[in-house]
Amino acid sequence: MVDEEKRLSQLEAEADREEDEDNDLVFGLSDRFIQKVVLALREDDRQTVLEELDELSAADTAELISKINDEDRSTLLHNFVEKMDPYVFSELSWELREIILPELPSWKIASIISELESDDALDIIQSLSDEDFRHDIIRHLSAKMRLALQEGLSFPEDSAGRLMQREFVAIPQFWTVGKTIDYLRAAADELPEDFFDIFIIDPAYRITGEIPLNRLVRAKRSEKLETLKLEDIHPIPATMDQEAVAQLFRRENLMSAPVVDEEDRLIGVITVDDVVDVIDEEAQEDMLKLVGVGEADSYKAILSTSFLRSRWLAVNLVTAFIAAAIVSSFGATIEKVVALAALMPIVAGMGGNAGTQALAVAVRAIAVRELSGANAMRTVAKECAVGFVNGCIFGTLVGVLAGLWFQNVILGLVIGMALIINLLVAGTFGAAIPVILNHYKQDPAISSSIFLTTATDCIGFFAFLGLATIFLT
Amino acid sequence: MVDEEKRLSQLEAEADREEDEDNDLVFGLSDRFIQKVVLALREDDRQTVLEELDELSAADTAELISKINDEDRSTLLHNFVEKMDPYVFSELSWELREIILPELPSWKIASIISELESDDALDIIQSLSDEDFRHDIIRHLSAKMRLALQEGLSFPEDSAGRLMQREFVAIPQFWTVGKTIDYLRAAADELPEDFFDIFIIDPAYRITGEIPLNRLVRAKRSEKLETLKLEDIHPIPATMDQEAVAQLFRRENLMSAPVVDEEDRLIGVITVDDVVDVIDEEAQEDMLKLVGVGEADSYKAILSTSFLRSRWLAVNLVTAFIAAAIVSSFGATIEKVVALAALMPIVAGMGGNAGTQALAVAVRAIAVRELSGANAMRTVAKECAVGFVNGCIFGTLVGVLAGLWFQNVILGLVIGMALIINLLVAGTFGAAIPVILNHYKQDPAISSSIFLTTATDCIGFFAFLGLATIFLT
Repeated sequence: MVDEEKRLSQLEAEADREEDEDNDLVFGLSDRFIQKVVLALREDDRQTVLEELDELSAADTAELISKINDEDRSTLLHNFVEKMDPYVFSELSWELREIILPELPSWKIASIISELESDDALDIIQSLSDEDFRHDIIRHLSAKMRLALQEGLSFPEDSAGRLMQREFVAIPQFWTVGKTIDYLRAAADELPEDFFDIFIIDPAYRITGEIPLNRLVRAKRSEKLETLKLEDIHPIPATMDQEAVAQLFRRENLMSAPVVDEEDRLIGVITVDDVVDVIDEEAQEDMLKLVGVGEADSYKAILSTSFLRSRWLAVNLVTAFIAAAIVSSFGATIEKVVALAALMPIVAGMGGNAGTQALAVAVRAIAVRELSGANAMRTVAKECAVGFVNGCIFGTLVGVLAGLWFQNVILGLVIGMALIINLLVAGTFGAAIPVILNHYKQDPAISSSIFLTTATDCIGFFAFLGLATIFLT
Repeated sequence: MVDEEKRLSQLEAEADREEDEDNDLVFGLSDRFIQKVVLALREDDRQTVLEELDELSAADTAELISKINDEDRSTLLHNFVEKMDPYVFSELSWELREIILPELPSWKIASIISELESDDALDIIQSLSDEDFRHDIIRHLSAKMRLALQEGLSFPEDSAGRLMQREFVAIPQFWTVGKTIDYLRAAADELPEDFFDIFIIDPAYRITGEIPLNRLVRAKRSEKLETLKLEDIHPIPATMDQEAVAQLFRRENLMSAPVVDEEDRLIGVITVDDVVDVIDEEAQEDMLKLVGVGEADSYKAILSTSFLRSRWLAVNLVTAFIAAAIVSSFGATIEKVVALAALMPIVAGMGGNAGTQALAVAVRAIAVRELSGANAMRTVAKECAVGFVNGCIFGTLVGVLAGLWFQNVILGLVIGMALIINLLVAGTFGAAIPVILNHYKQDPAISSSIFLTTATDCIGFFAFLGLATIFLT
């Protein structure tokens, strides 16, 4: 009986702990919650789904949509899209939008878009690659929104013009603080939903300064905006690439920045929350590009994913055949000393790894602007030296181990020397390839690693088998 | 003569173009500018250096410091630190601070820190790993700053408590808009330098809501804060990990969020600019960890860089020897068919690449919370299928090519089958390893690729040489 009680209390404690684990989630959906909604969807239990959806924020609903499978997703969207906050669609990844939105009728998407701010509306339209479908949606919109979207789409892709919000607060510089606050109160309904700065303009609508709201509220009513305004502003040309915009925001710790046209006239504002998404995307992209995945493909079908990935593998195949040809040309040597074949993966693996380390460090340094022409030579020289040091360490280690394994001192010396050469080459190329690509204004992440492994494989095998041919046969 | 003129105008055009290239930099320092300052430093031309420094923002000066070599950096700091904006040191990377700051006397650092806001001051102190040095600096600070720093340091590393700013604006809920604005005007000098929201508190200092400034300025003076406040707030426990803080900010598009203690009392505020740095760091870290670089090491000396990198290479060595042992056990087969040695790099290379693609996609998906327990099985199954599809494509291709090259149909069939097996394994393991690590609350990026290449190398060689032994000997 006592045992029984003990077991019961143990079970209870376990249940508590499990619940605690769920409570660890300060935000986001628990796997259990998602399962519950999926079950309700499949059982066509409309009531439960509606109740659960009602509890969710836009970001939560977007998470739910992103984590259920294609079929459940279709059911959810077709039956409950009316009940969803329009901002749910802003929170979805581009990838997922491109899959989901074409399933909905264009008037439906238009009604979602018309409830968003102009930057969010443009963001949704941009994520649709089908030109006709875009057109169809835009046709259903109000004249004002239509104009805003068409103007937005006239800016280059991934530019500041595509990122900016067209609603902002611009005040003539001769106004006082009091007049400004009175105006803000009177025009409350016409103002953008959120804003952090007011921009000060001259009669030609050119920006001359900005005043953060916290500076405005602590100023005296009689103060002139002209004396209050900050002139150290960072106007962004509408054509600036979004990556540069993100770097500027990070660099200067900006919360928002005005966007101007070629005549320096104020045409919009970019806020930091839009930039956060860009920063995040760019950083994640670097990792994917480094391994030859051009874009996130979590939601693509198996065949299109395979196809996208296969391009990189095809390039890799060519370089692998070059390495194979080098090995093959030393066939006679390998036939005499089969141990060489066994040791080949060590030479290639160590070189590839050491080189990829140098490569990732250089790609990161370029991305955060720590590395440019000014210190490129120094960086490459350092990686060359690091490669040499680790080459000596691991060359010695592998040399001794291989010598003992195959009872052959010369074989140990040969692989030791090959590793020194290969790690030196790996470090040098690992740093030099992204630096050179960057110098020629190419993306330093993309395809870097293919050049690198080609170099380390080919030079590694050539050094190893070449030395073996000289000293072992 | 005409030719001469033509050449001259061509040269001029070229010079213009070069200048244009420099002008492409809307922000940041040109390499030419950096060289100019370095030259002035080396020639001890104090006047020029001072003039140039005077033109630079804090972020610019930080960029300059980060891009010159160790010796020039020392000269610059020792001779010109008095002329630099204290925020220059906030802009420097942690890595660089740890190298630079210990070179300065502790009272000097204290005088820099005392001009910063509490969160920036804490950030500087945190980046010093030497406990005694920290203590020494804190000793030189005012009692108020000392207390703030010691309290900040009492929170766990990388927690919200370390990230937050202790200066914020909290107003009792029974105040009106008018009274609040009057207070802000009267207390202007005591307010934090920047703020975006005012927090509404009850008598026990517990947060009950917040009011963005733009909501405050457009409200009527007579309105009560109680009716104006937004209650959908996201209070952050001081012990929350900074990565979770960053995800919450991204998810809810926050500009700032209140930080609370265990009793829900307001103790600080985190603003999005601090979070941008965290997001950036975390994303960049994933890339580095994936290839076995634990931390950015651009400024570390050659030997310590080599040492840090060598840990990963040592782990890789063990797995490389396992692969070598597998190859070695098929020595007899290779001796008979030397072509196998030539084709080995193809099997290993294709498997490694395909697996790393799946790995990077899964790591990214986990980082952006697209992937969790709820869809883990689906993701692994998909990557397994993608691996199979690409295995069939490249197995066939390589099989045909290898068959033709070595005039051996069976050899072609063997490597074709081996590639199908290896790419299937690569896709499955590439997705499964980070999912499993994440399930056990381990970092999904770190050391993932070592497990992966061990799997693809060993299974790939075993399949290839094993099949060859069966069908070719």
